[in-house]
Amino acid sequence: MNQSTSLETIVSLCKRRGFIYQGSEIYGGLAGTWDYGPLGVSLKRNILNLWWRMFVEERDDIYGVDAAILMNQKVWQASGHVDTFSDPLVEDLVNHKRYRADHLLKDQGIDTKGLTAQQLDELIKNNKIKSPDGNDLSSVRQFNMMFKTQVGPTWMGWQADGDNYLTGKIQPKSSSGEALADFTIDENRAFSEIIAFDKNAQSYLRPETAQGIFTNFSNIVDSFYPDLPFGIAQQGKAFRNEISPRDFIFRSREFEQMEIEYFVSPDNWQESFEMWRGLVWQWLEALGLDKASIHELEVPESDRAHYSKRTIDFEYDFPIGREELLGLAYRTDFDLMNLQSFSGKKQEYRPKNGDKAFVPHVIEPSFGVERTIMAVLSGAYREDEVNGEKRAYLKLPINLAPVRVAVSPLLKNKPELVDKAREVYVWLKKNYTAVMWDDNGNIGKRYRRQDEIGTPFCVTIDFDSLKDDTVTVRLRDTTEQQRVKVDSLAKII
Amino acid sequence: MNQSTSLETIVSLCKRRGFIYQGSEIYGGLAGTWDYGPLGVSLKRNILNLWWRMFVEERDDIYGVDAAILMNQKVWQASGHVDTFSDPLVEDLVNHKRYRADHLLKDQGIDTKGLTAQQLDELIKNNKIKSPDGNDLSSVRQFNMMFKTQVGPTWMGWQADGDNYLTGKIQPKSSSGEALADFTIDENRAFSEIIAFDKNAQSYLRPETAQGIFTNFSNIVDSFYPDLPFGIAQQGKAFRNEISPRDFIFRSREFEQMEIEYFVSPDNWQESFEMWRGLVWQWLEALGLDKASIHELEVPESDRAHYSKRTIDFEYDFPIGREELLGLAYRTDFDLMNLQSFSGKKQEYRPKNGDKAFVPHVIEPSFGVERTIMAVLSGAYREDEVNGEKRAYLKLPINLAPVRVAVSPLLKNKPELVDKAREVYVWLKKNYTAVMWDDNGNIGKRYRRQDEIGTPFCVTIDFDSLKDDTVTVRLRDTTEQQRVKVDSLAKII
Repeated sequence: MNQSTSLETIVSLCKRRGFIYQGSEIYGGLAGTWDYGPLGVSLKRNILNLWWRMFVEERDDIYGVDAAILMNQKVWQASGHVDTFSDPLVEDLVNHKRYRADHLLKDQGIDTKGLTAQQLDELIKNNKIKSPDGNDLSSVRQFNMMFKTQVGPTWMGWQADGDNYLTGKIQPKSSSGEALADFTIDENRAFSEIIAFDKNAQSYLRPETAQGIFTNFSNIVDSFYPDLPFGIAQQGKAFRNEISPRDFIFRSREFEQMEIEYFVSPDNWQESFEMWRGLVWQWLEALGLDKASIHELEVPESDRAHYSKRTIDFEYDFPIGREELLGLAYRTDFDLMNLQSFSGKKQEYRPKNGDKAFVPHVIEPSFGVERTIMAVLSGAYREDEVNGEKRAYLKLPINLAPVRVAVSPLLKNKPELVDKAREVYVWLKKNYTAVMWDDNGNIGKRYRRQDEIGTPFCVTIDFDSLKDDTVTVRLRDTTEQQRVKVDSLAKII
Repeated sequence: MNQSTSLETIVSLCKRRGFIYQGSEIYGGLAGTWDYGPLGVSLKRNILNLWWRMFVEERDDIYGVDAAILMNQKVWQASGHVDTFSDPLVEDLVNHKRYRADHLLKDQGIDTKGLTAQQLDELIKNNKIKSPDGNDLSSVRQFNMMFKTQVGPTWMGWQADGDNYLTGKIQPKSSSGEALADFTIDENRAFSEIIAFDKNAQSYLRPETAQGIFTNFSNIVDSFYPDLPFGIAQQGKAFRNEISPRDFIFRSREFEQMEIEYFVSPDNWQESFEMWRGLVWQWLEALGLDKASIHELEVPESDRAHYSKRTIDFEYDFPIGREELLGLAYRTDFDLMNLQSFSGKKQEYRPKNGDKAFVPHVIEPSFGVERTIMAVLSGAYREDEVNGEKRAYLKLPINLAPVRVAVSPLLKNKPELVDKAREVYVWLKKNYTAVMWDDNGNIGKRYRRQDEIGTPFCVTIDFDSLKDDTVTVRLRDTTEQQRVKVDSLAKII
């Protein structure tokens, strides 16, 4: 909860210590993608597994699913994503670089909240906003953020094999033969490929996991016939073709979500909403986040989606400022009704007491994995002074720390110390997860390195260990060292 | 290991009981995609977690990574996927349906093993092969199986908003202005969109996870400087735009891999290869697969990738026949050398004893999650007769079963039985994972349903339970029932 921690400090620690690297870094990167290194994978797995245990395994009323990332395009037509999931885009007319219109205006101190593309366009023209390179900008148009792809071998196209250029035009016409606007290719730009997308093979990388839950609602009801209220949970990747990804993993193009759709009767949605509000706070506590850094934002009607009757954004004091960490929304029956009318298949629940079947309403707690990781890392980051030297450490909860215990021989060139240390290590590794062997550098350096990755316990084997079977346990948060018998280690860690 | 089990039996059980549903089923599906229901998610998680524990957490020499699915296109140029990752395609000249050339020939009993596109083309012409609809076929061309997409807001295109058609042509020219072949649009086909792909924004859904490991090799060496040999492990989704996905989850367009690249010195690769061969067998045993159904295929030089000096395919007797379950390959330094020459960045390991730095060689054990699930399910499927009635059950190992223990009251309308059963249930759920409450139908139906999903233990609370604190434990494999004290339940399950 160190609000003064800079984003750069976290990014640099993540790279140096093997938590998170830039995606495709070796080839200069691919903007908006990130690769998790060994410690990042452990942290992420600990978070994913904690969530799954708490919200699926330990409960009776939640069913897990894992739907495909590639879905039939009708899913995104029904959900409205094809038509409206877009950001306002402007293009530098000279170098063809593209920007988010609202970002350019915000950078000039102009408030853009809630404005339409047309209003943004007028603001850009009236304020004579130029591109960051000083050039004129195109009109604002809506850029759909879904990644497109084509499923099945149905595309036809011409593929360039080098620095090739295309010129010409294509005349689209309606099914009745009426001519529509020309599609022209700019002669001066190099293309790798031109593809005419077969209407029936068009697909998208899912921009959210929720639709993979709704489309399986009737499958779950048919296979399990659960009591209402019940929920369906999913963890998985989602993709948004952000115009300008930024702020480390906070706004990336590829990310992971943890979502639950909790199906309720419209008569008592408030009760379930309050239950989930409480569960969200339990979750945030389990992550070790400081309560004072978390803020409930009761989203006013004017800012809510039209179908939502109540939404709370849980915001967190990130190094980049106060931003949304997760959301809790009452979405009424909007999603299932949409699905029902587009698919023509009833999305109803038949109460076990014989009451009339109805389309359930839904409460949606939605968690972003990357934002959770960023909150956990920045919230855990601490600096202090030990023996006159600056020290940085991650005060991670024990159950989230990528390494729980590091075991070291005091000196790595004394075989008797190494043997004894290996013995303790093997014993601990058999009984605990996340036990690490560490014999790099001297003991002081090891402690600092383990501090930086958030290891709560360092166990060191020295010459006394050989005599009396004791070891030194050094605690991350206080740097305090305790002398304990090997067989009472379990009590501490 | 029931070779006589039909694929249809497994597919039908998976859908009915909530293991695996067709992807986007509600909209008529999306070929080659599958959604996991509650039991399928549990089974898959159990397999993924077992693998991670066995090959990453319990070892000292393996580092986990989780790289992005979207990677810089140079990765796939360097790996050869852009040029050669393709299947031979023919098109029905009348209805434009597309087929794999080798599949059409195989269906006519013609052997196509190892043939080039040109050879396939000649065979199709000489044998006058028609499409399944009886029409003439186009020439064979190579269809690249990578899903294409465009990263960043750099595409330009014309988008149809209904049943629209395109006509016209585009003249590609080389950078020196020389004209190339026309790109023409067929007037009679409806397209959703036409896109000129910006050369620099072209990307692909990764067709394998391995490249996410190789591109992080130097990151891991820099952050951790491990002793050689060491490995990097990854689990994650991969995508192949199969021309004709088939055989349930065996050949799907979206799938999950578990891969390790194990870096070794070229002087003693055999040793590591044999170690992995042994570990693969340990893994197969942990999955409960029958050894007699697993076959090592020592791939002869003529069938190996040109760079591989040894490859063993582990084949399994699936319901669809003997097919590859996983692979173990010695890939020499092919991948890191490729990466080094394309990126211009050294991919070397500097031995800790001061010897000269070198590019390590690699052993790759590669596991498919879906094929593992299919082997586990079909291998576990059993039918027998109990009291004169046919019974189907899944003989899953306890650690893989989606439900480990099901707890039921003998009668659901007796509150005292339900209360006692809830008490036992809550206690078990606190101490074990995968404990399920089941009060649907009568006790006989419950057992049959639990048999079908592979639950090894069913605990039933009856009137005697109220008197002497005993319960009935019913065993899946033998249908034997034991009367035990509640507090000695732990010993059995």
